Amino acid sequence: MRITKLVGERLKDTPNGIVSKSHNLLLRAGYIKQVSNGIYTLMPAAQKVSLKIINIIRDEMNKIGGQEVLMPIVMPKELWEKSGRYNSIGTEMVRFKDRNNHDMLLGMTHEEAAVHLCQNTIKSYDQLPFMIYQIQTKFRDEARPRAGLLRVREFTMKDAYSFHINQDDLENYYQVVYKSYLNIFRRMGMKNCIAVSSDSGMMGGKKADEFQLLVDAGEDNIVICPNCGYKANMEIALSQYDNVNFEDKKLEEIYTGKAKSIDEVCNFLKVSPKQTIKAVCYAIEGDSNSIVIAFIRGDKEINEAKLKNILKKEIVVKDLSDTNLVKGNIGPISLNINGLTTIFDKSLEGLCGLVCGANKDEYHLINVNVTRDISPKEFFDIAKVCDGEKCIRCGHTLEIKKGIEVGNIFQLGTKYSKSMAMTVQDANGNQINPIMGCYGIGVGRCLAGIVEENSDDKGIIWPINIAPWEIYLCPLRIDEENVYKESENLYKKLSSNFEVLYDDRNVSAGIKFNESELMGIPIRLVISPKSLKLSHAEISIRKTGEKLFVELDNLEIKLKEIIENLRSKNE
Amino acid sequence: MRITKLVGERLKDTPNGIVSKSHNLLLRAGYIKQVSNGIYTLMPAAQKVSLKIINIIRDEMNKIGGQEVLMPIVMPKELWEKSGRYNSIGTEMVRFKDRNNHDMLLGMTHEEAAVHLCQNTIKSYDQLPFMIYQIQTKFRDEARPRAGLLRVREFTMKDAYSFHINQDDLENYYQVVYKSYLNIFRRMGMKNCIAVSSDSGMMGGKKADEFQLLVDAGEDNIVICPNCGYKANMEIALSQYDNVNFEDKKLEEIYTGKAKSIDEVCNFLKVSPKQTIKAVCYAIEGDSNSIVIAFIRGDKEINEAKLKNILKKEIVVKDLSDTNLVKGNIGPISLNINGLTTIFDKSLEGLCGLVCGANKDEYHLINVNVTRDISPKEFFDIAKVCDGEKCIRCGHTLEIKKGIEVGNIFQLGTKYSKSMAMTVQDANGNQINPIMGCYGIGVGRCLAGIVEENSDDKGIIWPINIAPWEIYLCPLRIDEENVYKESENLYKKLSSNFEVLYDDRNVSAGIKFNESELMGIPIRLVISPKSLKLSHAEISIRKTGEKLFVELDNLEIKLKEIIENLRSKNE
Repeated sequence: MRITKLVGERLKDTPNGIVSKSHNLLLRAGYIKQVSNGIYTLMPAAQKVSLKIINIIRDEMNKIGGQEVLMPIVMPKELWEKSGRYNSIGTEMVRFKDRNNHDMLLGMTHEEAAVHLCQNTIKSYDQLPFMIYQIQTKFRDEARPRAGLLRVREFTMKDAYSFHINQDDLENYYQVVYKSYLNIFRRMGMKNCIAVSSDSGMMGGKKADEFQLLVDAGEDNIVICPNCGYKANMEIALSQYDNVNFEDKKLEEIYTGKAKSIDEVCNFLKVSPKQTIKAVCYAIEGDSNSIVIAFIRGDKEINEAKLKNILKKEIVVKDLSDTNLVKGNIGPISLNINGLTTIFDKSLEGLCGLVCGANKDEYHLINVNVTRDISPKEFFDIAKVCDGEKCIRCGHTLEIKKGIEVGNIFQLGTKYSKSMAMTVQDANGNQINPIMGCYGIGVGRCLAGIVEENSDDKGIIWPINIAPWEIYLCPLRIDEENVYKESENLYKKLSSNFEVLYDDRNVSAGIKFNESELMGIPIRLVISPKSLKLSHAEISIRKTGEKLFVELDNLEIKLKEIIENLRSKNE
Repeated sequence: MRITKLVGERLKDTPNGIVSKSHNLLLRAGYIKQVSNGIYTLMPAAQKVSLKIINIIRDEMNKIGGQEVLMPIVMPKELWEKSGRYNSIGTEMVRFKDRNNHDMLLGMTHEEAAVHLCQNTIKSYDQLPFMIYQIQTKFRDEARPRAGLLRVREFTMKDAYSFHINQDDLENYYQVVYKSYLNIFRRMGMKNCIAVSSDSGMMGGKKADEFQLLVDAGEDNIVICPNCGYKANMEIALSQYDNVNFEDKKLEEIYTGKAKSIDEVCNFLKVSPKQTIKAVCYAIEGDSNSIVIAFIRGDKEINEAKLKNILKKEIVVKDLSDTNLVKGNIGPISLNINGLTTIFDKSLEGLCGLVCGANKDEYHLINVNVTRDISPKEFFDIAKVCDGEKCIRCGHTLEIKKGIEVGNIFQLGTKYSKSMAMTVQDANGNQINPIMGCYGIGVGRCLAGIVEENSDDKGIIWPINIAPWEIYLCPLRIDEENVYKESENLYKKLSSNFEVLYDDRNVSAGIKFNESELMGIPIRLVISPKSLKLSHAEISIRKTGEKLFVELDNLEIKLKEIIENLRSKNE
C-alpha cells in the first residue's frame, strides 16, 4: 500500500475531548472516524487489523468444532417474546415497525435466533453437543458510549452458542472454550488478559466468566488474589473482612444532633465506622413509590450489582423527599413503612454493640444487637470488596485492578431452550430441553484494548499478528533518483512476501518517523542516500526501539527472521 | 465435518409455497432457514459458500486497488439529509428513533457514509483516484421479498465507492471494475453472467451497468442482440421497429360503439394496431389528482421505468372514475383537462392516417396526422422493446431473456460530493467536487443465482471454487468394522489436504447418495466392503455423473487432479 493513496489522515494534534489513549491514537493515526455518538467507521488500516483479529477468532472457533453461521440482525418481535426478553430488555434494544407495521428489533445478542436455528433441525441426543457461532454487526443503544471503540453502540461481535444433553457436558465444553479464549487473546498479542468469575446479567444462567484485559483505561474493577489466583469481577467478588466484637449492652436512644453521615456520627460518638450500621435507600426502576433499604456495616460499601441480582430488578437511588424517612437517621429498628423491602448484608450477622439511626431527627440508637433487636430473616452478600481486604479462599491481601471486558462466556442452562420449547430426544426416548452455553468476543473492543496495552508516548505498537502492515518502507530523500528507484524496486520485491506500507511521499524524515511510530507498524525499514552508498538499509523495531543495519542482499532473510521472532513471542 | 454434527437438516419433501428452484434446494438441503419474511439464517453449509464468495470478491477488489473499510449500518438522519435521500427514499428505508429521540436509519447503501469517510481526509488531487469498499449487512424493507435468497430484506453486500478528479479518470476506472466484476462472477462458477446497460435509478448519475445472470428464475428482462452484442435491461433498452406509412386524409370523427380496447377498435374499423394511438393513464405517486397520459403506437407497450425517468417521479396507474376522461376513448386531440401532462412516444413521430379516441363515448377519430393535428413539442422514448424487434445498432432480431441482477456499477458524477460539499484541491489550486463511481454485489443473491444455474432434478451442483466441501466421504455399511476403520482413517488423512464432509451415519446407500446429490458436493467418494476388498474407492463427479475406481494408494493424487481440473474450468 502506498501511503499517498491510503485513506486515513494522520493528525498532529489530539482532537478535543478525548479521554482514552486508544481513542486518541486511533483517531490521530487515521484508523477510525466517528459518524455519530458511539458509531464509527473503520478506515482501511483499522479494517485490516479487525480482519486479522477476526481470522484468529475464526481459526480458534473452528479448532474447537464451531460451525460458522450467519443469523439476521433484524428479527421479529415474536422471537423475543418467547424468551420474555422483548419486554425485559429496556431502551438498549432498538425496536421499529417495518413497512407492514410489524414490530421488529435489532438483535443485540442471538440466544433466541440460535434456538430458532436449531429447533426442529436438531432432534436427537446423538447430534449433541455442537456449537454454532457467527461474526456479525450488533447494535446496542448504550446510554453512555465513551472512549472511542471501548464502548460503542455499533460493533462487530463473535457470538457462539453451544447445545448439550446435560450439565456435565456443558461444563466440559465450557472449559474447552475457556482455554480457546485464552489462546485467542494471547495470539492477538494481549499480555494481561485474565479470566474472572462474573455476573451473568441479562443472559440468565448459572456461571459466567469474563475475559478482562488489565489496563488503566478499563471500566471494570477486578478483584485479584496474587497468592491463590482468585479472580472475580467486583460485581460478584467475595472477600474476608476483619471480624469485630463489641460489648453487648442495653439498647439506648442517644442525642446525636446534626451528625448524619457515618463519619459525623462516628466523630460525635467516638466510635469506629465498623461499629455502625449504614442505611442506603433505593427504589425499583419504574416504580418510584417502592423503597428498598440496604443495611451494611458502616465501613463497607453497597455493591449494587449484587443487590440487583438479589432483587432481580433494576434499582435507582431513592429520592427521600417524598417519604417519612429521616435522612441521616435511618435505622432498621421500628421502621414501619408500607411496601418497604429491607436487605441486610452479611457483615452485620451476629454483631452487637452497634450504632444505627433512630428514625428520628437528631437521634441514633446505641448498643444495637442485630440478633436481639432486628433479627432479619436472612443475610445476603451485598458488599463491595474493598482495597486491603483478604482473599475469601486463602486470606491473602486482595488487589483491585481496572479491566476491559474483551470477552465473556456463560452457562445458560435451559433458560432459552425451555422458554422457546426446543426439545431433543435423549437416549431413553424422552424429550428434554438442551442445556446451552454462550460465548462472546467484541472485535472492536479487542482492537482498542490492544492499543491501550501496546502503546507509548509516540503512538501504537501493534503486535505483529494483528498489525495492519508488517513493514513501513521509509525512503528518505525520495526526490533523489537512486533512492526513488531503489525504494520502488524494494516495494515491489518485498510486497510479494511481506505486508508493506510504502511511504512514497517526499516529506521530511521527521514526519515519516513520527507517523510510522504513531501508526504502530512493527518494523520500519529506512533507506537513504547514505545507506544506499553502503548498500545498506536500516531496520528499526517499533516495540524495542532496536536498530540494525542490514545489507540489501540479506534484507529479506533478516526481515523474515525478525518477523518470526516477533510472532514467536506474540509481540 | 461429520454429518452427524452438521447443523442443517436435509428434507425429503419440498416445503409448501416455494416457487424458485434455488429456494427449494437451499431449504431442502439444509442451507437456509427463514426467520421472518425476507429474513434468513445462513446455516453452516451456506455460510461456508458465502465466505468463499466473499473471499473471491475481496481478492478481486484488492487486486484493483480497493481499500477495505467498514462503515456503520446505523446512521444519523443528518447524513442522509445532506444528499436529499432521507426524504426521497420511501418506506424501503428503515427509520427509527434512538434512546435520545434522535432520528436514525439503517443504511441500504453507503454513498453518504463513503463521502463522510473521505471528507476532510482526502484533500488533494494527488490522493485521487482511490476506491474504498466494504462487505456488510444491509437491510432494505422490500415490499415483496420472494424466492428465498433471490429477493430478501436483509442481505450481505459488497459495496464500493471510487473518487476521481475528472470524468475521464472515472471512466477508465469504471472499465477496470467492469472487467473485475466479470472475473468475480466467472470465478464463482457462473456461466451466463453478462453486463448490460441499465437505469441508474435512485443512485442518480450518468451511466450504469448491471451484471445479469441469465436464468429462468430471473425477475429482470434483458434485451440481447445475438449479432452485435448489444445488451440492455428492458428498463432502458432501445430497438428499431418497423416503420409504417398510412394515407394522409382529412381528420374525421367516426362511430365505434362499444369498441374500447385497441383490439376491439381494430376489429371494428378493420385496421392494424400499428395504425392506432394507445393512451395509458397514470397519476404521480402521492398526488392522486395529477394525470399523466402516455400516448404510444397501438402495437407497443409503455415502459414505465422510462416514463418515471422522464417525469423524475414515481407513478401509479390512474383511477379514471374521478375524472372526465372517457375510458377506452381517450385521444390526444381536444383533451382539455387541468393539470394534465401528456407524453408522446417516438413511435408516433411523423405518422399520419392514425386512429385515436375522440374523448367522447362511442366515438374515435380517424386519419389523425400527428404533426398536423397534435404537434407535440417533443417525442420521448417510453416504449418497451418487444420480442422480434430489431437491434438499434445492427438491425438483427433481438432476444429477450430473464436475468438475476447479481451486481451493478454506476457512474455517479458529483451528485453526492456536491450535495455534501466534499471538495479536493485540483492541480491548479481550485477546490472541486470529486467525481464518484459506486459498485455493488449481492453475496446471497450470487449464492442463490449459482444454485439456479447449477442444479438438476437431484439437487445443487456447486462449482468447486465455492462448494462448502470438496469431497463427500461416503462409506457404505459403516457398521462393518473394516469399513468404519478405513473411513475414519480416510477422513483424518484427507482432511489435512481437502475439505471433507464425512457421512458417518449408519444409513442406507440410497439416503447417502440422495443427500450428497441434494447438497451438491462436487466429488463423492464411496468406500464399501466390496471396494475395500479390492483396495479401491469409487469417485463420482457430481457435475458430469462420471464414475471412476481408484486404488486407495493413489487416492489423494487422483483427487487433487480432479479438483485442479474442475478449478481450471470454474466448474
